[in-house]
Amino acid sequence: MTRAQLSIRSAQHCDIAALIALYGDDDIGVNREAMEPDEAYQSAFDAIQRDPNHILVVGERDAKIVATLLLSFLPGLSRHGAWRAQIESMRVSGELRGQGIGQALIDWSIDQARQRGCRLIQLTSDRRRDDAHRFYERAGFEPTHFGYKLSLETP
Amino acid sequence: MTRAQLSIRSAQHCDIAALIALYGDDDIGVNREAMEPDEAYQSAFDAIQRDPNHILVVGERDAKIVATLLLSFLPGLSRHGAWRAQIESMRVSGELRGQGIGQALIDWSIDQARQRGCRLIQLTSDRRRDDAHRFYERAGFEPTHFGYKLSLETP
Repeated sequence: MTRAQLSIRSAQHCDIAALIALYGDDDIGVNREAMEPDEAYQSAFDAIQRDPNHILVVGERDAKIVATLLLSFLPGLSRHGAWRAQIESMRVSGELRGQGIGQALIDWSIDQARQRGCRLIQLTSDRRRDDAHRFYERAGFEPTHFGYKLSLETP
Repeated sequence: MTRAQLSIRSAQHCDIAALIALYGDDDIGVNREAMEPDEAYQSAFDAIQRDPNHILVVGERDAKIVATLLLSFLPGLSRHGAWRAQIESMRVSGELRGQGIGQALIDWSIDQARQRGCRLIQLTSDRRRDDAHRFYERAGFEPTHFGYKLSLETP
């Protein structure tokens, strides 16, 4: 795959259904998503679009959404007032992994983060995603932290 | 310690020096901070204050800043358009740990996150912070993820 075949851009409203399909095309994510781009998704998309500190990124090939991540720029006082970039909800279409698409999205994100003056870029990855861990480590990320979550949903 | 003795509030501009001291009072953080509340800290503080999706929280006892965390509310499309709360740069003054101050800040943050409709609250903790891991797990957080970082600073 050459870079020319992959187009990286901000998500548009009409991409929401394709993004939900990508989130759901995953053993871990499958039970977290609804089937349709309902009001919850629309409202979340609008919140992301309104805030210049978040970019919902899509990778497109042959007019098809094949990858995504959410890139956020976060201010902070620690580390001498460092801004940090954060990647959340990265997905590459199952049948297209290992072709450099993920790396192209990471490279794009690092470039954006540098332009915004971020001093580090961070993400967390579910402990069960061994392939993802190998990918992030090859991309230069170091697994220096543990990632903790607490659900606020009433069961 | 009773809750009445600990006051939890948003940081004010005049707290910056005390917060830098807290960040630096730490084996891991000590080399990351400058000594004075210089322009980098001022500008970071202003960026946090300007954005209602970030709250720089301080715990104060006997008119002294004894703890802090940065609480962020982050939109996202995945997990059915879930907002998530994120805790960053949590510190409790070294000589006051184990007295419930950290738990009070976590409880306060969870309450704010629920009020903002967040469906989960997340944080990462350096692998070397064994005491912190025990603390977060007692507080109900699950270490479901690995946290990766990539420095964007030129050495």
